Amino acid sequence: MHPHAPRRIRFNAFDMNCVGHQSPGLWRHPDDRSSEYNTIAYWTHLAQVIERGRFDGLFIADVLGTYDVYGSSNRATLAAGTQVPVNDPVLLVSAMAAVTEHLGFGITAGTAFEHPYPFARRLATLDHLTGGRVGWNVVTGYLPSAARNMGQRDQAAHDDRYDHADEYLEVVYKLLEGSWEDGAVVRDRRSSVFTDPDRVHEIGHAGAHFTVPGIAITEPSPQRTPVVYQAGTSPRGLRFAGENAECVFVAAPTRQRLAQAVTGIRAAAIEAGREPGDVKVYTLLTVITGPDEAAAQAKHEDYASYIDHQGALALLSGWMGIDFSQYGLDDVIGHDVQTNAVQSAVDTFRASAGDDEPWTVRRLAEWVGIGGFGPVVVGSGAQVADELLDWARETDVDGFNLAYAITPGTFEDVVEYVVPELQARGAYPTDYEEGTLRHKLFGRGDRLPANHRGSGFRIGALAMSGGAER
Amino acid sequence: MHPHAPRRIRFNAFDMNCVGHQSPGLWRHPDDRSSEYNTIAYWTHLAQVIERGRFDGLFIADVLGTYDVYGSSNRATLAAGTQVPVNDPVLLVSAMAAVTEHLGFGITAGTAFEHPYPFARRLATLDHLTGGRVGWNVVTGYLPSAARNMGQRDQAAHDDRYDHADEYLEVVYKLLEGSWEDGAVVRDRRSSVFTDPDRVHEIGHAGAHFTVPGIAITEPSPQRTPVVYQAGTSPRGLRFAGENAECVFVAAPTRQRLAQAVTGIRAAAIEAGREPGDVKVYTLLTVITGPDEAAAQAKHEDYASYIDHQGALALLSGWMGIDFSQYGLDDVIGHDVQTNAVQSAVDTFRASAGDDEPWTVRRLAEWVGIGGFGPVVVGSGAQVADELLDWARETDVDGFNLAYAITPGTFEDVVEYVVPELQARGAYPTDYEEGTLRHKLFGRGDRLPANHRGSGFRIGALAMSGGAER
Repeated sequence: MHPHAPRRIRFNAFDMNCVGHQSPGLWRHPDDRSSEYNTIAYWTHLAQVIERGRFDGLFIADVLGTYDVYGSSNRATLAAGTQVPVNDPVLLVSAMAAVTEHLGFGITAGTAFEHPYPFARRLATLDHLTGGRVGWNVVTGYLPSAARNMGQRDQAAHDDRYDHADEYLEVVYKLLEGSWEDGAVVRDRRSSVFTDPDRVHEIGHAGAHFTVPGIAITEPSPQRTPVVYQAGTSPRGLRFAGENAECVFVAAPTRQRLAQAVTGIRAAAIEAGREPGDVKVYTLLTVITGPDEAAAQAKHEDYASYIDHQGALALLSGWMGIDFSQYGLDDVIGHDVQTNAVQSAVDTFRASAGDDEPWTVRRLAEWVGIGGFGPVVVGSGAQVADELLDWARETDVDGFNLAYAITPGTFEDVVEYVVPELQARGAYPTDYEEGTLRHKLFGRGDRLPANHRGSGFRIGALAMSGGAER
Repeated sequence: MHPHAPRRIRFNAFDMNCVGHQSPGLWRHPDDRSSEYNTIAYWTHLAQVIERGRFDGLFIADVLGTYDVYGSSNRATLAAGTQVPVNDPVLLVSAMAAVTEHLGFGITAGTAFEHPYPFARRLATLDHLTGGRVGWNVVTGYLPSAARNMGQRDQAAHDDRYDHADEYLEVVYKLLEGSWEDGAVVRDRRSSVFTDPDRVHEIGHAGAHFTVPGIAITEPSPQRTPVVYQAGTSPRGLRFAGENAECVFVAAPTRQRLAQAVTGIRAAAIEAGREPGDVKVYTLLTVITGPDEAAAQAKHEDYASYIDHQGALALLSGWMGIDFSQYGLDDVIGHDVQTNAVQSAVDTFRASAGDDEPWTVRRLAEWVGIGGFGPVVVGSGAQVADELLDWARETDVDGFNLAYAITPGTFEDVVEYVVPELQARGAYPTDYEEGTLRHKLFGRGDRLPANHRGSGFRIGALAMSGGAER
C-alpha cells in the first residue's frame, strides 16, 4: 500500500460505428443494443451514460474495409456481423455533442485516403461544434481490402505510410496552427471587418505528397489542432507517437507487457523533446461487473455463451494475418497449430489468465471474443476498482480504454459499480473540470504545448526558432 | 383566377456553414445570428423553425475555397466574411436530425475531391442516422482556389468534370443499390446470422477514373441512394441533371427566365427516359415579410442599409469571373462598365426590378447583396403568398429555395406570415406525410424509381435489362 493518494485513473469508452465491435456474436444477447449502431438514439444515450460516469471521452474506432483473411473471404465476417456493416464515425459527433457538455470524442480517421485540405476542415468544424472536445485518432492505414477499393493494389509499405502521415500532419498543423493568427477574426460590427486579412496567411506547403499553397478556410477553433491520439506500436509507429501523440491507445494482455509499452511510449516522447507525462496512455480492457462478485461472474458466463467463434477467428485472422479457418476449434495450439506468432500470443494470454493448460483454438477464440487483445476483469465494483488501481500502479498507465461485452450495458455497469468505488478511493474525479478536452487532460490550456511538433508550425515559430522548424 | 385548387408550393431553406451566405454584410445586423454558424445551437434552432414551417428541407451549400477574383486576392472576401470562414456541412446533420422528425437535409458535396468509396459510406451513414431524410447536392467542381489547395493546377475542364462525375455516380449507385440485396441483413439471433453472405455482392467496378472491386461496407439505408439534387445549367449540366437529379435548384431573376429553365430541365428528364414531373425544381428567392406591407418594406430598407458593397462585389466577381474592383461604386453600367456579360445580367435584374434607369455598380452590388442572383419579394404574408403562387403558375416551378437576408429571422418570418397564408389558400401542407424524404417529395416509396439511372445498377437489373445497363 502506498502512503500517498492513489494515482488518478482515466476512462475512455471504446466503440465503433458497427455491430459487436470487440465482442463478435454478442449482438445476439437480449440486452445488447449494438445492432442499433445506425440510429442516433443509440449514440446519444451512450454519450450521456459515460458523461455521467465522467469518462474522458468516447473513442470511436474505424475500418474502411472487411476482414477477409479467414477463409480468404469476407463470408464469415459478414455472417457474424464482425465489424461489417460499418458506418462513418465522424458523422455521429454533432448529435452526441448536442446532448453532452464535457465528454470528449476521439475520432479515427486515416491519412491514406482523404486529402488533408478538406480533412483539416472537418477537424476544425468538429472542434467548433463541440466547443473544443475533439480528438483525432491518426491511423496510417486501414485493411488491405480498403486500399483495394480505393483503387490501390494494396496498402503502402508500413514505414512509407508513416512518412506520408508525417507530411499529412504537417499540412494539418500548418492549416490549423499557422494560417489564421489569434485575433484575426475580429467580428467588428462597427468597422465592418469580420476577418483582418493581414492576419491570415497562406501556408505555402509544397512537399513530396501534397501541394497546398493557400490559407485555411476555417477560423481557429477552441483547440486549433484537436487532441492527437495514436495507437502504433512498431518502432516507426512509436517514433510517430513520440512526435505527435498526446494520447496513445495500447492493447497489452499482461501488466508486464503494458509496463514495457508505457515505458517505450514515454521514452519516445522524451526522444522527441517532450516530457514523459505529455502523453496519456490508455490500455484496452473490458470490465464485467455487477452488484457483487457472484453476479459479475454469472454475467461473464452468460456473455461468454454468446461468443461467435467464427466471428472471433475472422477478426483474429485479420489482425494476425493468419487464416484460422484451416484449424478445427479443438485443435491444440503448439500441437495442431505450430505457428510462432500464434504460440507467442497464446503464451501471453495464458499468462494473463493464469492458465497452465494448453490452449485450443476454441479457447483462443473465446479469449479474443470478449474485448479483443485486452484482458477481461470480472468482479464487484470494489474488486474491479482495486484491480485497476493495481494495474495503474504497476504499469504507470494513465487510464483504460474500456471495450464492451454488451453495449451500453457494460458501460452502464462500470458507471454504476466501478466509478463510485474509484471516487471513494480518491482515484477518480467526481466532476469534470471546465475547458476543452486538451485542458481537461493536461490542465494547461486549450492549445498544443510549446514543445509539441505542431507548435513549430505556428505563426512566429519560424522567427522564434531561427528558421529551424520550417 | 383559376377555378381549380392552386398548385402546391414547396419550400427549402438555403444556408451554408458560414457567415452571411447570400447577404454579405448583414452579419452586422443586430438580429442576425449567422456569425454563430460554428455552434450546434444555431443549426438545431434553424432546423426546428423550418420544420415547424413544413419545409421540405434545409439545403446547405458549400465551397472549399475562397472567392479571389475581386482584386485578384481574397482580402475583400475575408474582410467582409463573404463565405469565408466556411465549415464542413455534412457534420451538422446528425445534431439537426436528432431534434427533428420530418425535415430533409440536402448536403452539398463535390465529386472532384473525395474518392466515391468512403463518400458512399458517408451518404449511407447519414441516411441511416436520419431515417431516410438525406439528399445529396452533386457539384462537379468548387472554386479554382479549392482545386489549387488540393494540389491541382486548376479545376478540370467543365465537360470533363461531368464525365468524371458520371462515373463517380455510377460507383455510388453500384455501392448503394447493387451490392447488398434487400433482406441481406437478417439479424437472426437464433441462427447467429447477421448478414447472409450469399446476398452481398462485389460491385467489380473498373472504369476510367475508379477501380472498386469489393462490396459496399454499409447495409442498405432507408432510401439506399439519398435524393439526388443538382444545380447545373449548362447543356452538359442539364444532361447530367436529366439523368440523375430528382431535385434541381435554379437561380432565375425573372419569371420568363425561370419558365425557360424549368422547361429545359423537364425536357432533359424526358430525354433521359423519365417523366417531366420526376424532377422537382426549386428557384432561388428571398422573402422579406412582416405583419403588414409597411413593416415588410421598413425591414427591407433596414436590411439593405447593412449590405457590404465590397463583399457583394467579391461574391459577384467570383461568380462572373470579372474583377469588379477595377470600377467605382458610382460607375454606370453600359457607360463606365462595358462588359457584355455584366450588361446582360443587369438588363435581366432591371427587368425583374421593373427599373428603367441605368444601373450603377452600387445598385448591382445592392441587388446581389440580398439573396444573390434571385429576386427579393417584399410584402405582407398575403402579398408574398399571392406573388409566389403567381410565380409557380406562370413558370411551372415546384417550389422556392429560400435564401435569407438575416438568419434565422428571415425564415422565422416566412413561417409566421407566409406559410399560414399559403395553407389558407390550400397551396401548402399543414402537416408532413410519413416516410422518407423521397417519399415525401414524390409519394411513391423510399427508393429510386425504376426509370431512374441509378435503378439500372440494382441487383437483377442486368438480367432484367438484357445487359444493356451494364
